[in-house]
Amino acid sequence: MPKVEVCLTPVLIDYFDLNNKTVVVVDIFRATSCMVTALASGIDHIYPVAEVEACKSLMQQGYMGAAERKGLPVDGIPLGNSPLQYLNDHIKGEKLAMTTTNGTLALSKSVNASKVLIGAFLNLSALCKKLIDYQNDVIIHCSGWRGHFNLEDTVMAGAIINETGFVADGDSAHMVKTLYKNAENNMDAFLKNGSHYQRLVHNGNKEDIPFCLSKNKFNVVPYLKDEKLYI
Amino acid sequence: MPKVEVCLTPVLIDYFDLNNKTVVVVDIFRATSCMVTALASGIDHIYPVAEVEACKSLMQQGYMGAAERKGLPVDGIPLGNSPLQYLNDHIKGEKLAMTTTNGTLALSKSVNASKVLIGAFLNLSALCKKLIDYQNDVIIHCSGWRGHFNLEDTVMAGAIINETGFVADGDSAHMVKTLYKNAENNMDAFLKNGSHYQRLVHNGNKEDIPFCLSKNKFNVVPYLKDEKLYI
Repeated sequence: MPKVEVCLTPVLIDYFDLNNKTVVVVDIFRATSCMVTALASGIDHIYPVAEVEACKSLMQQGYMGAAERKGLPVDGIPLGNSPLQYLNDHIKGEKLAMTTTNGTLALSKSVNASKVLIGAFLNLSALCKKLIDYQNDVIIHCSGWRGHFNLEDTVMAGAIINETGFVADGDSAHMVKTLYKNAENNMDAFLKNGSHYQRLVHNGNKEDIPFCLSKNKFNVVPYLKDEKLYI
Repeated sequence: MPKVEVCLTPVLIDYFDLNNKTVVVVDIFRATSCMVTALASGIDHIYPVAEVEACKSLMQQGYMGAAERKGLPVDGIPLGNSPLQYLNDHIKGEKLAMTTTNGTLALSKSVNASKVLIGAFLNLSALCKKLIDYQNDVIIHCSGWRGHFNLEDTVMAGAIINETGFVADGDSAHMVKTLYKNAENNMDAFLKNGSHYQRLVHNGNKEDIPFCLSKNKFNVVPYLKDEKLYI
């Protein structure tokens, strides 16, 4: 049975051996929820970049631009980090350049894995089916918030271990199983203590929360290839 | 009401502001359990050092020496990291130099706090009474294992928040409250999935486990002053 380790923030990823592992990048609020929604809604591919300037440069090459810093949109870049913006027929066939505070950092620090997949509650079952197909050891790379642990990414890690039935490897994997068991029957109540949840409410993005916590709206599993995300 | 933040491993401590905070260093298996036991048993003070060579050098100045690397004792240094070794009348009045894999690192990274205290289940109530006396914001600094999160230090963090009644500040503080709630009625069953627990069993130190998980055997709160620990 494959094993699952859990990296709680990108700051800790250097303590994991990514060789021959499948890494699942998770940023529930909201980068990976956005990526899943955008690709499921017809975006051709996403080019995740670390810097706002790189995003603007890709916009000059025909990409749509999406950016978020400290939970807010960025001047000069039309799209932000709300997945609801991508439920839109006009984006079909477009290419999207995206930069966010935490999710694109976690992605850039995952590139040495043998496969890199994008996980969200929105594609939980499709993701877990893919992991079961692969039968490869997994590292769940939680994006956290500016170096800190967060609740929603780690509850998602617990959901993946629960649904795949893979073996929890290491103390953080056992911890996320406990969190998920405590959260699964009332995610909203469990997560509302989280700083990210409260930041979304404070910034007027409350409607993103139930959307990001919805399971299995989309049957897609984005994967990284040549620095870009496809389904 | 004072707030409590929780730092899950020493790798993450730079993401916390230690100014004017009370830091509680926790390394249940086994450095802080040892420190509490040794000082409660009559050791005059402990000089925690990062390197084995520094420990040996202090031994030449009249200190007893204690060292642990990868869970095992170190050649040329008589004492290890088992708290049971310190339940011994012969150590009364001695000075102890100590170096361990994780606990002394967490301690050395805590020195910019206004106060640094040592926490273990062994002195939980005495520690919490002191924190309630201080009415100061707290950072619980979990030592983890070589950069990784561990279960027993974080369950202890949850116990501190529970017993002080202080406000959980940040996602990791909320997480440890949940862990403690799940663990408190059967600590041994909850923690036996932990890598540190299994390492102690593997290394023949199984008898240390129930001792380190015993609450309130000692009514002392070690504190750091001029690089040394006193009660």
